[in-house]
Formats: sequence, C-alpha cells, structure tokens
Amino acid sequence: MESIIIRTPVTESEIRIGEAWENVSGKLPSSGVVLITDDNLKKIYGSRFPDFPVLSIRPGEESKSLETAGRLSAEIMDLGIDRSGFILAIGGGVVSDLAGFIASIYMRGIRCGYVSSSLLSQVDASTGGKNGVNLGGVKNILGVIRQPEFVICDPRMLLSLSEDEYLSGMAELIKTAIIGDTELFGILEEQYAEIKSRNVDLLELLVTRAVRFKARVVTEDEDEKGLRRILNFGHTFGHAFEAGLAIKHGFAVASGMVLASAFSVEKGFCSEEDNFRIISLLKKFGFQLKQAVTPGMMEKLILHDKKKAGSDIFFVFNKGIGDATFMKIPVGELSHFYSRQNI
Amino acid sequence: MESIIIRTPVTESEIRIGEAWENVSGKLPSSGVVLITDDNLKKIYGSRFPDFPVLSIRPGEESKSLETAGRLSAEIMDLGIDRSGFILAIGGGVVSDLAGFIASIYMRGIRCGYVSSSLLSQVDASTGGKNGVNLGGVKNILGVIRQPEFVICDPRMLLSLSEDEYLSGMAELIKTAIIGDTELFGILEEQYAEIKSRNVDLLELLVTRAVRFKARVVTEDEDEKGLRRILNFGHTFGHAFEAGLAIKHGFAVASGMVLASAFSVEKGFCSEEDNFRIISLLKKFGFQLKQAVTPGMMEKLILHDKKKAGSDIFFVFNKGIGDATFMKIPVGELSHFYSRQNI
Repeated sequence: MESIIIRTPVTESEIRIGEAWENVSGKLPSSGVVLITDDNLKKIYGSRFPDFPVLSIRPGEESKSLETAGRLSAEIMDLGIDRSGFILAIGGGVVSDLAGFIASIYMRGIRCGYVSSSLLSQVDASTGGKNGVNLGGVKNILGVIRQPEFVICDPRMLLSLSEDEYLSGMAELIKTAIIGDTELFGILEEQYAEIKSRNVDLLELLVTRAVRFKARVVTEDEDEKGLRRILNFGHTFGHAFEAGLAIKHGFAVASGMVLASAFSVEKGFCSEEDNFRIISLLKKFGFQLKQAVTPGMMEKLILHDKKKAGSDIFFVFNKGIGDATFMKIPVGELSHFYSRQNI
Repeated sequence: MESIIIRTPVTESEIRIGEAWENVSGKLPSSGVVLITDDNLKKIYGSRFPDFPVLSIRPGEESKSLETAGRLSAEIMDLGIDRSGFILAIGGGVVSDLAGFIASIYMRGIRCGYVSSSLLSQVDASTGGKNGVNLGGVKNILGVIRQPEFVICDPRMLLSLSEDEYLSGMAELIKTAIIGDTELFGILEEQYAEIKSRNVDLLELLVTRAVRFKARVVTEDEDEKGLRRILNFGHTFGHAFEAGLAIKHGFAVASGMVLASAFSVEKGFCSEEDNFRIISLLKKFGFQLKQAVTPGMMEKLILHDKKKAGSDIFFVFNKGIGDATFMKIPVGELSHFYSRQNI
C-alpha cells in the first residue's frame, strides 16, 4: 500500500494505492453520506457498498452534464444532506468528475472522496482535483479544481474492466512515462506481457509511479498556470479526435501522442529514435496510430478546445522520453502541421 | 472614493465605493471580455456600457438557475471566450450571483469583476465572494465562494432603484448595524430623512461602513466556518419568509430580524430597550414586522434552509446593538419559539 499526499495552499488530499476499496467505510463519517456511482459498478460491487443512499447514473460521457448535476443535487437535497455531508464517488472518471463537481458546488462545497475504479481514473482523472461536466459537446467546459479528501486506487478493481477500458487507461500511463518517467517507459516496454494480463502487483507499481508524478506536478501548479500544462501531452489533437469521432479518451490521446511526438521531432525536441520507441510501444499495446479526421475538420475541432488562449494554443512537446515542455503555437501552424501528415 | 481590500489565502479583491461606474472600462482587459446584465439595467445604462458583447437576463430571482447558467455559458463559449477571458457583471445580487458562479466554473474559473447596482448588492451580496444559483425553490443551493477581482459600488446608481428595491437593501444595512456597528445604527436613527431621500454622500458613507464591516468578517472567515455566520442574522426566519411568501429578500430579513431580536431577548443576549430601538428603526423605514406564515409551515421551510447542520441550526443572536453571536439551536426549539409569537 502506497500513500501519496497532494498538498495545495488550502487542502490536503491523500491518494492510497493498493488499498482494498472496501476499507473506504473506515474513512467516512457515520451519517450524512451519499454515494454516487454508475449502473455497471453498482451491479458488480453494489452488494459490498457502505450502507448509505446510492445515486446511480448511466455509464458514459453523456452523464457528465449540467442537467445530471442538477438532478443529482436535487436528490441529495431531498436526502437531507447538508453542509456537513459527504459525497463518496465510486467509479471511473465520469463518476468522479461529476460527483467532484457536485461536491464542489453543493451548498458551496461539501466533503468528498473517491474510490477510483478504472485504470484511466486511477492514473489520471481522479488525481489532481479537476472535475466538471461537458456542455454542447465540449468536454469539461464547466468545472472547478478542488481536491477530494482521499482517492482509493484498488488495482483489483481493474480486473473487471473491459479490454477497451483497460487499454484506454493504458494510454494515459504511457503519456506519463513519455513526459516524466523514463524508467516507467522501460517497464512498459519490457514487462508488456504481464501488464497485458493485468498482474495486480505490477499494476499497483504502475499506478503508483503515475500518481507520484502527477502529484508532484499538481502540488507545484494546481491551477495549471505553468508546469501542469505538460499533462496535456497528446491532448490537443486527442481532444479533437475524441470530440470529432466519439472514440474513447485513451484511444484519442494515443493517436494525439503520435502527432505530438512527430511534431516534437520536427521542432527538434525529440530524436527519431525516441519517436520510434514511442510509436513502437503504442503499436505493441494495439493502439490505432491514425484517425480519420480531415485537416479542415481538425482546425474547427481544435478551435473549440478549451485550452486555447486567443488564437494560440499551449502545445506540449516531448523532449525525448521522460521530459516535456510546452509553448504557444498558433492554431494555423497546428492545422498546417496536421495537413502535412498523410492521414 | 473609498477602497477596501479583502485578502484571502489565495485572492485579493478590491471594493471601490464612490467610484463612477463608467470608470470600470479602465479595469478591463482589451479583449476577451463579456458583460452580463439584466434587461432593466441594459435599458438604463446600456448606452454607456463598455464596448464588449452583452448577455442580458430577465430581471428577478427566476434567472438564478442552473439552466440560465448553462445557457449563458454556451453563449460565452460561442463568443470564443477562453481561459484568459473576463466576465463583467453589471447589476444587483441576481446578476452578480449568477455571473460570479459562471466565472467560477467556466473553464474551471476565469477572471471576473462586478459593477454593483442595487443597495442590497452594494452593502451585502457583491462583497464576500459568495455566488450561486437556486434549485427546486431553495436559494443558492449550488455555488462556490470565490472573490471577484473588484466590485465597483457607485451610489449614484442607487437613485434609479424603485422604492421597494431601495428599502430591501436598507434591511441588510440595518442588519449590519445591529450585528457589528453601533455608530452606523445611530446614523440610521438620526439621519433617517436624508437617507430616505437618498442623499448620495450619505449613501456612500453608509455603504462604506457596511462593506468595511463585511470585509473584516470575510477576511477572517471566508468559508463560513465560524464568525461569518453572524452575517446570517435575521436570515433563518427570513429565508423561510422569502421562500414561503415570495417576498423581497430585504423585507423577509427585516421580519426575520424582528423574530431573531425577540429570541435574543428571551435568551438574555439583548435588553428590552435595545430590542425596542431595533423594532422602532425597522418601523420608521416602513418595514412590515410580521409575516403570515403558520408555525407548521415555518418548521417545514426552516428544515429546507441550507445552513442547518443535522437537526440543529446555527442561529444568530444580537448582543444588544453592535454585536452578535451564534449557537446551534434545535429546529424544534425554533418552531416552538415561533409558535409562541402571536402571528
């Protein structure tokens, strides 16, 4: 069991990796608790949930809406939950993004914690305090940054994920390795087979490394005024693929990283050799490298990306493997770069 | 012109009292600004608004909804406003509560400032960073606490208020005097006629005193874990009247203060003499002292008040005039007290 603390000016958040999720009961107040989960997870784990009211949403990105946030808030109000209440999210990124957002705004903020059930959320979404809902097809346009009191990452929960869900999370793990952890990249390359077969001890190690890196970044720059931007590696093109093709986040990010790494080679940040290792690793895990989005569509999609500042976008470049940097790039240059790739 | 600064762990907010509202232009960035106002204010002041896109809502509490917040956010997105954007609210409490909420969650928070146009918002709503929307008839159930960069309180704007709006704000001014400013109470008693006729210099003085007091309280306890609770004086019964009778906030608070002061006498916090002065001042301004809500209805309404913790409520008592305290009171005791008043 590994415990990683994220300290920010006003909060302290504990990420526990390798903790049995059932132990969450010991971290909850004795009353005023409400659980938020999705229908799939309720089916699998519901019988072992702590004994509190459960609000369940339909699985999938469509539930991350202002309407769902309003509906759940009304139900929480009807349950008599007040300022001393506690929201426990049990689920992946959709559940924790939505529940964290509600906890941030309900009565101007009540306590919350997450049991993180997917690989994507364990290595990325549930750490760092970003939460939110989508609006008009644009992801996470409404939300806040607020740390949950704790996040429990139980690698045994990853055994019940579908292959697609598991693979989608793997993309963010590979991202972490590329931008900040050379050694992790080596483990992914070498122990590929055990990872594919979901060796629980190995998964605990991988999640721990990813969270440790992200915690360091978030502690230094919670508000994403600088360093935190590197976590968006692969996400500029990735978000465009995700929005345009309605594919899973990780699959979109994987293809986005292929482009970002190629752009990094062009800019002189990354060697051809390192780029080749990145492509090879993504292929090995079975990621599709290219996506069917036309250059014209790409520009339109990027202009809707919420990380743009004016007509420039902070674009993240990998400096080989294990380091990254970012700079403002005009949207025009990005779409020009994209149109030069043979899609 | 008076400048009062609210410093919290992560922000600094400047309240400028006596500043001409038109000077707000000098405080805005040169691009990426959007104005949020209401139809009435747009009619009166629109021709002198700074030259940026204007989103106008229907005046009144009904606009403080999650739906309006979502609709305006979508419009802001369509205007191409990104993380570097700025929301300027021009209006009373409804406009600043709504605009401040949107600014707090849009792209996880963008810059904002207020031009505060009503007496209620100048002396209370726009200072302190509380924002939010209503849900299912319960006020401000969803929101956050986040300070705007600045608030401009131009007393000349108060000249265009209706008598009702003006009087409604006066209740919060009287509240401030009761809980924290003996001298202000004296001014209200003595200079009643000039205040009624809206002497602008006098209004600047009154607003300044109210903001100075509130700023001190908010600086000490932004998150309302302690001291800030005293600002809810008159609001437990007040919110119940407001929700049950759909009357203006200030009118509801005035009647709520009558009850709170009587309860304070019962508890030994306030003398009969001070209570008499309070009642007299409220009468002088023309406030209705009692409201037609049955004891049974009252208990139901109070249980929906968002400040309750379990079955107890933090109730604020005035210690005579110029000081206040709070303690947890069981809801049952409150409704019992209420049923003893001859309503």
